[in-house]
Amino acid sequence: MPQDIASTEKPDIQPVGYELDDLYTYLEDERLDAIEPARLSITSPYVVSQFLGRLDVDDRRKILRLIPLNIGTDIVAEMDAEDAADVLEAMREGRAVQILEDLDPDDSADIVAELEDDDQQRLLKAIDPETAATVRELIEYDQDSAGGIMTPEVAKVFTDMTVTEAVGMIQKLDEELEHIYYIYVVDHDDQLLGIVSMRDLVMAKGSDVIGDIMTTELRGIIPVDMDQEEVAHEMAEHNFHALPVVDENKRLIGIVTDDDIIDIIQEEATEDLQKMMGAGGDETLGDPIVESVRRRTPWLVVNLVSAFFAGGVIAMFEHQIHQLTILAVCMPIVASLGGNTGGQSLAVVIRSLALGDVHRGESRDVCLREGFKGLLNGVLIGIIAAAVIWAFTGEAIVGGVVLLAMILSMTYAGTVGAFIPIILKRMGLDPAQSSQMFLTASTDIVGFAVFLGLGAWLLL
Amino acid sequence: MPQDIASTEKPDIQPVGYELDDLYTYLEDERLDAIEPARLSITSPYVVSQFLGRLDVDDRRKILRLIPLNIGTDIVAEMDAEDAADVLEAMREGRAVQILEDLDPDDSADIVAELEDDDQQRLLKAIDPETAATVRELIEYDQDSAGGIMTPEVAKVFTDMTVTEAVGMIQKLDEELEHIYYIYVVDHDDQLLGIVSMRDLVMAKGSDVIGDIMTTELRGIIPVDMDQEEVAHEMAEHNFHALPVVDENKRLIGIVTDDDIIDIIQEEATEDLQKMMGAGGDETLGDPIVESVRRRTPWLVVNLVSAFFAGGVIAMFEHQIHQLTILAVCMPIVASLGGNTGGQSLAVVIRSLALGDVHRGESRDVCLREGFKGLLNGVLIGIIAAAVIWAFTGEAIVGGVVLLAMILSMTYAGTVGAFIPIILKRMGLDPAQSSQMFLTASTDIVGFAVFLGLGAWLLL
Repeated sequence: MPQDIASTEKPDIQPVGYELDDLYTYLEDERLDAIEPARLSITSPYVVSQFLGRLDVDDRRKILRLIPLNIGTDIVAEMDAEDAADVLEAMREGRAVQILEDLDPDDSADIVAELEDDDQQRLLKAIDPETAATVRELIEYDQDSAGGIMTPEVAKVFTDMTVTEAVGMIQKLDEELEHIYYIYVVDHDDQLLGIVSMRDLVMAKGSDVIGDIMTTELRGIIPVDMDQEEVAHEMAEHNFHALPVVDENKRLIGIVTDDDIIDIIQEEATEDLQKMMGAGGDETLGDPIVESVRRRTPWLVVNLVSAFFAGGVIAMFEHQIHQLTILAVCMPIVASLGGNTGGQSLAVVIRSLALGDVHRGESRDVCLREGFKGLLNGVLIGIIAAAVIWAFTGEAIVGGVVLLAMILSMTYAGTVGAFIPIILKRMGLDPAQSSQMFLTASTDIVGFAVFLGLGAWLLL
Repeated sequence: MPQDIASTEKPDIQPVGYELDDLYTYLEDERLDAIEPARLSITSPYVVSQFLGRLDVDDRRKILRLIPLNIGTDIVAEMDAEDAADVLEAMREGRAVQILEDLDPDDSADIVAELEDDDQQRLLKAIDPETAATVRELIEYDQDSAGGIMTPEVAKVFTDMTVTEAVGMIQKLDEELEHIYYIYVVDHDDQLLGIVSMRDLVMAKGSDVIGDIMTTELRGIIPVDMDQEEVAHEMAEHNFHALPVVDENKRLIGIVTDDDIIDIIQEEATEDLQKMMGAGGDETLGDPIVESVRRRTPWLVVNLVSAFFAGGVIAMFEHQIHQLTILAVCMPIVASLGGNTGGQSLAVVIRSLALGDVHRGESRDVCLREGFKGLLNGVLIGIIAAAVIWAFTGEAIVGGVVLLAMILSMTYAGTVGAFIPIILKRMGLDPAQSSQMFLTASTDIVGFAVFLGLGAWLLL
């Protein structure tokens, strides 16, 4: 009795599953056995997937056994493909097969791609042939391309159908059809002719003809080999919930949906920030320590080489430092301000590049403007620094040298902070890659050289 | 004849509007008059909005006059609220009113909030009273809260309706109803009872009762005062296209949709990266130079203060540096490696905090692990550095002091790189805020002190 439901049974709006912190408490207290299956089954699959990410293989299996299979699928869908592959490898085959069949094919393909070769063959033979064929096709695409993130299940209809016929056709499609918000209108060669949203369908009369209600203004069509970062840009630009993916013959072969895009944007943001500082682009706190060190060491070696150059610059002025040790006291002050001034420019330019805000012919302007900002701050900060040094040492000329050195090195720092990501990008590299290290290497060398050079010239 | 369309008229799939670079070329060549209205009208509104962002007020008006009003609305919707407000202030009132009425109410409210007070009152009086009331209500909410980003237009139905009745009710709603992917089932006090997706509606029979097909498992309900960053987390967690927003009495008052969330995630990523380096969180390359400098200067002053402390540490060892200038040559090498080692930890921890990956009771572990990574790299890099210095100076003991100083300072750097964002967050501040500056201040001071201290003790 629906009316009764409305008037008497208000479902509790509060979630009643575990929070992530609850689960961590069980882990810390080594009481995983005390986790209640009933509560775990109504815990957000995302929360459970996060929790599983911190467990070893045996504990993962133990936890997953507590959960009904259909919820297990939701949880696996939320995991990293790599983690999910580990879980499936350790699982009873029947259960693993069921999960792979239930997942969206793009998620299944991501996981299958991460399996050991023999597990891959074994599981692909065990799952139903149709799904296996789709998965085999999808793992061929580059994982970071539109093909790698698309789902190949699309609702297609024809122009001459009525709305009632189209609805009938969609209702016959797989129950599990993911994200069906747009229906794509194609000809018999799968060429895209138009788009009808679910909303259009609900709003239309049953007798309306698809060809009349469809939108033929087709924007944001994604070639299958487009890079995922660019796909994310297109999605943000067009504000659609899904974009159609076409092959080289312009045949509709799948869609990318905006929930995939949210994950990609997060990934790219993490990559930018971590790469900028010379850490691994996809490093997480849960990674094994040795693995994490292995990824960071090479950039520290690069840093060491550049630091030796900076040391070499200082060594050229050893004699002057011996005569006037205040030079050694002040030189890191000049270098530190240079590094941080450059870092401000670096950050803004890296994000502007990531958001597609730097355009053809603008690069020179951007560097000049950032250099000018460095100059202004060099004057401001330099005056304060000079005044303080004058007050402490009683020597106005030392303050003057610091002022001059700061103006020059901070102007340089602003310019080079903008220049590094732009040139990295032009060289086809990631604009963020270890750019902070390149920056401080360069601002250290220039900062030391300018300050010690001016000091040697004006003070001795 | 739909069949004819299918067989003969394949619409051109290529976009035919301008690309952003085309428009910039007109701007550079100062030939804005040569822009063709017809092509501009079919250019992506996002592209036009990006372009307008770079123009001065007069040029913006000139360009907007070339475009039909309905497209003008799409373009204004894509602009920053601040830019859009500038544009509307400069526009003929009739046109501005039309745009404010056509926009989604949440977008209108964002723009109205940015208007000068008198323009705000003038335009709110001119637009239709119902929209004005909605906008007035929305601008009361904190712009960074769920209330500030939600749209108050929701499709509501009751449990005892049939699917046919519900569809009829939705069809009667405003044509412009944004993002209607879920229908919310409420009681007569607007308490949320369940959710029906558009897909459910299409899949159901007309005689089905809403109470029977609705989902009562209600997850991801957003309180109106939730911070937008947390809303983004909820959206990513639940993988829905829209989440319902409720007031303090749990009455359904709006929805947040995932296209708003994509913008927020991009904003937050920009903010993290730029704030980390001490630039403004929402600075863009287009900002006036003076404004940008004004936002960066205070952090450079903080940097200067900390650099003076580092200089003070060196000053304590002036006597030793005078005796042994190799100390001055090597001290920035130790400090540089410390800064960058800490930066790697800082980056990974900031992103982990942003993604909600650091949990109660884990902070100490995270700092210890990052410190251990610093230790390992300190040993590796320290050995290389010591060997090179030994080779260059012929003095094994100088190399040994560098090795020891690097191990200590890089262990410290890894630990403090993790500690800074965690403690900033615990203090209720942004974990990224100028953390790179705090980090290098601290690693400089410790690096200089450890190296010079060891050097003074072991070498003299």
